[in-house]
Amino acid sequence: MEILKGEFALERENIRVDSNGYMVDTEHPKIFGSKNDNIYIKTDFAESQIELITPVFKSIEGAYNFMDNLQKIVSLNLDNEYLWVQSNPPILPLDENDITIAQYGDERTDYREYLAKKYGTRKSVLSGMHFNFSFQRSALKSLCKTLDHDKVLALYLKLNKYITKYNWLFVYLTGASPKFHESFKDKQGKPNRDTFFSCRNSEYGYKNLKDYILDYTSVENYTNSINKLIEQGEIAKASELYMPARLKEGYRICNGDSKVPYIELRFIDLNPLYPLGVNKNDLHLIHLMLVYFAMQDDFNFDEEMQRRAYHNRNQVALYGNVNILNDRNITVKVEEEALKLIRLVEKLGFVEGFYKDILQDAKHKLQDVTETYSYIIAAGVERKGFINYHMQKAKLYLDRAKRTEFTLKGYEHLQLSTQCLLGSIIKKGLNYRILDHAQNFIYVENNGHEEYIKEATRTSADSYSTVLVMENKHVTKFVLNKNDVKTPKGVAIESVGEGIEYYYDEVKGMPVVVKPNNTNFGVGINILNIGYSFEDYKMALETAFLEDSVVLVEEFITGKEYRFLVIGDNVEGVLHRRGANVIGDGESTIRELVAMKNDNPLRSTGYQAPFIEIQCGEFESEFLRKQGFSFGTVPRAKERIFLRGNSNVSTGGDALDFTDDVHDSFKQLAVKAAKSVNAKICGVDIIIGDISEPAGESNHAVIELNFNPAIDMHCFPTEGKKRSVGDKVLKLLFDKED
Amino acid sequence: MEILKGEFALERENIRVDSNGYMVDTEHPKIFGSKNDNIYIKTDFAESQIELITPVFKSIEGAYNFMDNLQKIVSLNLDNEYLWVQSNPPILPLDENDITIAQYGDERTDYREYLAKKYGTRKSVLSGMHFNFSFQRSALKSLCKTLDHDKVLALYLKLNKYITKYNWLFVYLTGASPKFHESFKDKQGKPNRDTFFSCRNSEYGYKNLKDYILDYTSVENYTNSINKLIEQGEIAKASELYMPARLKEGYRICNGDSKVPYIELRFIDLNPLYPLGVNKNDLHLIHLMLVYFAMQDDFNFDEEMQRRAYHNRNQVALYGNVNILNDRNITVKVEEEALKLIRLVEKLGFVEGFYKDILQDAKHKLQDVTETYSYIIAAGVERKGFINYHMQKAKLYLDRAKRTEFTLKGYEHLQLSTQCLLGSIIKKGLNYRILDHAQNFIYVENNGHEEYIKEATRTSADSYSTVLVMENKHVTKFVLNKNDVKTPKGVAIESVGEGIEYYYDEVKGMPVVVKPNNTNFGVGINILNIGYSFEDYKMALETAFLEDSVVLVEEFITGKEYRFLVIGDNVEGVLHRRGANVIGDGESTIRELVAMKNDNPLRSTGYQAPFIEIQCGEFESEFLRKQGFSFGTVPRAKERIFLRGNSNVSTGGDALDFTDDVHDSFKQLAVKAAKSVNAKICGVDIIIGDISEPAGESNHAVIELNFNPAIDMHCFPTEGKKRSVGDKVLKLLFDKED
Repeated sequence: MEILKGEFALERENIRVDSNGYMVDTEHPKIFGSKNDNIYIKTDFAESQIELITPVFKSIEGAYNFMDNLQKIVSLNLDNEYLWVQSNPPILPLDENDITIAQYGDERTDYREYLAKKYGTRKSVLSGMHFNFSFQRSALKSLCKTLDHDKVLALYLKLNKYITKYNWLFVYLTGASPKFHESFKDKQGKPNRDTFFSCRNSEYGYKNLKDYILDYTSVENYTNSINKLIEQGEIAKASELYMPARLKEGYRICNGDSKVPYIELRFIDLNPLYPLGVNKNDLHLIHLMLVYFAMQDDFNFDEEMQRRAYHNRNQVALYGNVNILNDRNITVKVEEEALKLIRLVEKLGFVEGFYKDILQDAKHKLQDVTETYSYIIAAGVERKGFINYHMQKAKLYLDRAKRTEFTLKGYEHLQLSTQCLLGSIIKKGLNYRILDHAQNFIYVENNGHEEYIKEATRTSADSYSTVLVMENKHVTKFVLNKNDVKTPKGVAIESVGEGIEYYYDEVKGMPVVVKPNNTNFGVGINILNIGYSFEDYKMALETAFLEDSVVLVEEFITGKEYRFLVIGDNVEGVLHRRGANVIGDGESTIRELVAMKNDNPLRSTGYQAPFIEIQCGEFESEFLRKQGFSFGTVPRAKERIFLRGNSNVSTGGDALDFTDDVHDSFKQLAVKAAKSVNAKICGVDIIIGDISEPAGESNHAVIELNFNPAIDMHCFPTEGKKRSVGDKVLKLLFDKED
Repeated sequence: MEILKGEFALERENIRVDSNGYMVDTEHPKIFGSKNDNIYIKTDFAESQIELITPVFKSIEGAYNFMDNLQKIVSLNLDNEYLWVQSNPPILPLDENDITIAQYGDERTDYREYLAKKYGTRKSVLSGMHFNFSFQRSALKSLCKTLDHDKVLALYLKLNKYITKYNWLFVYLTGASPKFHESFKDKQGKPNRDTFFSCRNSEYGYKNLKDYILDYTSVENYTNSINKLIEQGEIAKASELYMPARLKEGYRICNGDSKVPYIELRFIDLNPLYPLGVNKNDLHLIHLMLVYFAMQDDFNFDEEMQRRAYHNRNQVALYGNVNILNDRNITVKVEEEALKLIRLVEKLGFVEGFYKDILQDAKHKLQDVTETYSYIIAAGVERKGFINYHMQKAKLYLDRAKRTEFTLKGYEHLQLSTQCLLGSIIKKGLNYRILDHAQNFIYVENNGHEEYIKEATRTSADSYSTVLVMENKHVTKFVLNKNDVKTPKGVAIESVGEGIEYYYDEVKGMPVVVKPNNTNFGVGINILNIGYSFEDYKMALETAFLEDSVVLVEEFITGKEYRFLVIGDNVEGVLHRRGANVIGDGESTIRELVAMKNDNPLRSTGYQAPFIEIQCGEFESEFLRKQGFSFGTVPRAKERIFLRGNSNVSTGGDALDFTDDVHDSFKQLAVKAAKSVNAKICGVDIIIGDISEPAGESNHAVIELNFNPAIDMHCFPTEGKKRSVGDKVLKLLFDKED
């Protein structure tokens, strides 16, 4: 259905609170950069009132998922603070002048001070959810038969009228601010009641001093009537008009280059029952209603009708399912009038399945007030207390964010490293676009500076030849040696026969690693420790030659392998990757221990989680056999059994952070190695005997440089401190502060 | 055999002459850059005397092949000048002061002036071939049992003695300067004879004023005896000592970082019978003799012996197979004494096959003087005249260079583009090293500035993200459109089903090109012209999806496709590639015409030549069928029949240069397209209706950007002007003048 095609965005305000539910007085967190610059994370009225803004998406899911990501990123980056989940404020300072107004240092702060004086600071921190909607071009074509700008604006004005007229219904269905904290009361003791249906949408909420009557007879008249209010000094500007919907026109984030009209719906309370502050189905319901309204005839929204709309809305906001006045000024029950409308919507041809369920749910709420959000929340608050009830939710939603911190909603199909970088991009508020999902190719823009990034670490910072050098182990070694960086001794060979010849000459008895010249993910690599047989050696050669026509046979240096992630001039993370292993419990077989270790949300079979499940395949079986084990072996308690000789995470390994433990000389060495190939982003793999000792002649060797290092394992190691390396990549490319 | 392992280099002097055999008075050609900077192409004594210097190779073939390349590159870059092929000079100016001494503007020119005064300018332009030799480390280990520096020097001193003692034999076997031009005679009328065996090695050649006796009893004494000559003012420096061999020590080009001793053999005449001025087998023979000498006992090279060596050498140089004095001061025939030595060499265990043939050949020359180079050349000169005989050779060797100008000896396994670039590297005299032959990966260095280059155009000039953007057609299009560069309309689809859906919506009837998102060499691309069927379209989709999971269906713009090669800020070449085609002769079938067209050294089946043979495969058969032809069809005379719809050279196409014909606005457009993705080296493919008209709204579309454009087809197009684009790549990377 073309007319269902819309563009959607969400804006949400949340007050930052401490763990006891007190509104905090801290500055807007620096980690999100400048409020001016960050296009997703800003402040609203108060300095401690964060505003989260999604770009425009062509589906409700898109906007909703992005809000999920914003919620996650902001929650996880607050320092012992929480996002307050309720539209009505948390515990406010005794003196409302102690609420710090958002500091911009320009006219935006002045305007907020004007609002504070006029409406009071307490009311100004009421928070809500805004839902921005426009039709896609094809939907507009269906509805208007033309894309004529005036016709389109007229359509949105019609929607505005319907939304305003029927706002009582939406307040009933989405109202979620029934209770408030004592500190919200003003000097006159208002609100002077203790339960609402939606306090925020009521006369005690954030509304204009008068119920202004506007001229809806044409777009021009409508604009003029608002301008008249401004001229008369009633309001300072159009945005001071606190109506349920607002007609807007403008560039929308990520929407491209043309200005489009859209409608902003402002009546939705923060819903504490849902992690994101809104039930996604409510957005679908509102969308459906908008489409329905768009299909209906226009009508004359005269003064009497506007007064009834103000009245009806306030009645529902105060009491819920009460009597309202219908178009003929006759008193009717909310339920009755609402069901009449819903039945008309149900008759639309495309309303079936999903939409039918949503309408059914609305009908339940209308028929039984105990099913409404407002009723459920009020009951909860009465049981647990206002602050306690909402803080429990806030903490629950923070835990939810933590459980999936390594992934972003809607981007699960992207590599985790790309998701990590996107997390940083969103945190820092940069404009971006996914250009090619399969290739993890993104476009990032900030103040006109554009970057194209593939797989998180393939960027403009590195030159093509730098990458080509790193792609070729043989050439890399040539360059490293030219720059006096110690690498393992070894040779490049071009046939199994040549390798065997070399074996007799040089390697016999020496521990060696046999690997294809060009490789990735450790495929085709074999490490042969002292005591290996000629057959082992030959098989290792054959395995490697399956992957490449050139194979390297290298001295195997004693020590552990560490991955140094160099970004710019610094080492931003040091990991040791431990090969696939399990630790015995004295009872379980190796096969059972593997299954237990794999049963962890951090491990998956693909790349959906930072770690990969350990396999019980032929390779692992062979590796166990050489140690005298099988999958049926029962290791002793605390005994660590390795299933792989290589330490790649991609074959089931662990990653442990050692960034703060490594001797600084090794970090310098890693930077030197990266600089020798002129790399700005580089994974330097170094074998080190003892990381606490300074780098010397014989205690290390650089074994590989990686031009496309994964960053997710630094962000989310199996053990040790998490490193926000995505931020560092952005700093390198955009010269952004951490 | 370890002792056969050596390191070899050649130096060769050639006077530049005009087509009539007159020594020219032009400057050293600017195209070779500065004589100081170019490490391969310098000047010797005179400004018009080019010196060609090879790096050190681990085989005689390596040095020989490199000399072939130098010969080719220098010959082809001279402006109506030729390389004089004879050691004895061409037609010299009447007044020897009119021979311009090589201009360096420093003490090197002063030294040449001193030599000119002392020995005369005429003699100073005698040219020769120098052969530098050292043993590889493993050979030195075999010969000396140690790598002790003094022992190694002593070994080379021994070689020096043997070479000097037996120089009469080498002059006999390699002498090739029997005749000279009248203008070579000095005021005293010398040389006062008309035929020599080797004029250059005789008393009339370039030799010291006296036969100096040196102290060969130790390396130290030897050095001291030379220093004594300098102190006495006999010679200005060691290099003024014109002995058959010279002991040297130094850094050798491409040999790495340690100084090594080597021996320079200076007696070899330029051999006009061979294109490179030397018979490769003579180098092998000399090498074999050196190895033999190295295995012999040392001996005391006393004054009497040295005087006999001077005498014997001069006798042979004057007369050839005459009497000489043996160790016991008894007169013996050259032939007799030589055969005695050769028979000893033949007894070496490893002398068989190839070496046996070479010794056999030497014996023939000794037994029959008419087999010697000197005799053959003298006979030729008597028949044709000195100038005519040698100029015929010079022109022959220039033609030989032209025939294979697109390839370099010893590098035939590399891509032609890489060979083109190497040609420029050698021409400009930069140090280089092939790091990975299979990957066409080279290292280039000039005055400490290092570059790593893969496949000629993958360089440090481009950033990694620039390449990644170009690698992805979909992303490229996004960027081009953002920068207002016109591209064909189209969509990216992810399944055949989606493509079919799109077909019904949009493309039906419109000419389209169907291509994989990521591709190379035109694989999987199909162009569907007006009138194509649904089945054609579906098959094109299926073909493309075999190559990639994303396929582009694009508007097919009317016009011809041109490849603009952008390097830096300029378009350095514009080619139109014409799809595989043949032109009828009214008699032959298409299959026969293809065979005739393929029978051209510029075409090969692989990438050994700039153009690829046209195939007679299923694809071509199908393409002909659609035009109503088969391979058996006989086209009319001059009728052009296409066998492919795509224009790629890789499927048998031609490449025609249009660089000077294209309207400048298209060149600007190509540069803009490259700059939009920030590319420094970029192949921009543009469909253009008429290249002579300015770029307008509807007469063109940019269809592709290539990050690794081939350069060989610009260097050697099928038709049109050759473009030295390799030079431009170097200019970009090293800021070298063209």
